[in-house]
Amino acid sequence: MTALLAPRILERAKAQGKTVTCAESCTGGMVAAALTDIAGSSAIFERGFVTYSNTAKQDMLGVLPDTLQTFGAVSEEVAREMANGARQAAKSDIAVAISGIAGPGGSEHKPEGRVCFALATAQGTHTETIEFGALGRAQVRNKAKDHALSLILSAL
Amino acid sequence: MTALLAPRILERAKAQGKTVTCAESCTGGMVAAALTDIAGSSAIFERGFVTYSNTAKQDMLGVLPDTLQTFGAVSEEVAREMANGARQAAKSDIAVAISGIAGPGGSEHKPEGRVCFALATAQGTHTETIEFGALGRAQVRNKAKDHALSLILSAL
Repeated sequence: MTALLAPRILERAKAQGKTVTCAESCTGGMVAAALTDIAGSSAIFERGFVTYSNTAKQDMLGVLPDTLQTFGAVSEEVAREMANGARQAAKSDIAVAISGIAGPGGSEHKPEGRVCFALATAQGTHTETIEFGALGRAQVRNKAKDHALSLILSAL
Repeated sequence: MTALLAPRILERAKAQGKTVTCAESCTGGMVAAALTDIAGSSAIFERGFVTYSNTAKQDMLGVLPDTLQTFGAVSEEVAREMANGARQAAKSDIAVAISGIAGPGGSEHKPEGRVCFALATAQGTHTETIEFGALGRAQVRNKAKDHALSLILSAL
């Protein structure tokens, strides 16, 4: 999947003069790594945020402690603030955020394989949740990375 | 390689109560992704920095404009400031930084495959340069990621 998605993102973003960033929790850098896998990616990608802990989400992206407390890190509300914060900090046109339970096992009373996404653009911020199920850590992370890339592509 | 290195980092860092962070340019998130590939990594890894542009290196890690101007982004001097900045921002015990020319082609009058590394710990900051050669983008990035992981392991 990535092999197809990332080059299309690069091609379209370059043509439209748009820049992209990402704020990653459970994918831990995989989306940034996919975006930078292609030569020339510096034209559209300038920085990425790997915010694994709640403190990192607050410090680097301006996620509010109240939002983390009320909804938990794996929530559309937190993903929304992550994407908005990343878009602002990176001064990018498009930001995607990912927060989920890669497993093994659930946490925060939420099931393994649940991943929340947010896509922030000048038009607003869209959020969604996908239940990938208990596929195992590597598969959940990989599918979450591909979905994040497809969200970016949908905005281009 | 990663399959062996990351679990050993997690095991040793946990046993020593130490935390790890990374500041990545040419590897673009691959080191963070490798560190978070293992369940339980949140005990030792809290955040990572993907600083692809010079502006990102300045904003997120406090790299000085003068250092970038004088030595270029791919230099041990910049890698040193990236690692020190990441260690401080993340309040981590160990920080590794990577800046290199993944290619294809050289830049800044520097050859393809040159990668500069820095390892920052309480004992000080070590820097080194490896010429991986023109192996192609994927291989250079992969070898740089593995070397960064081995540097972290050497500090544990």
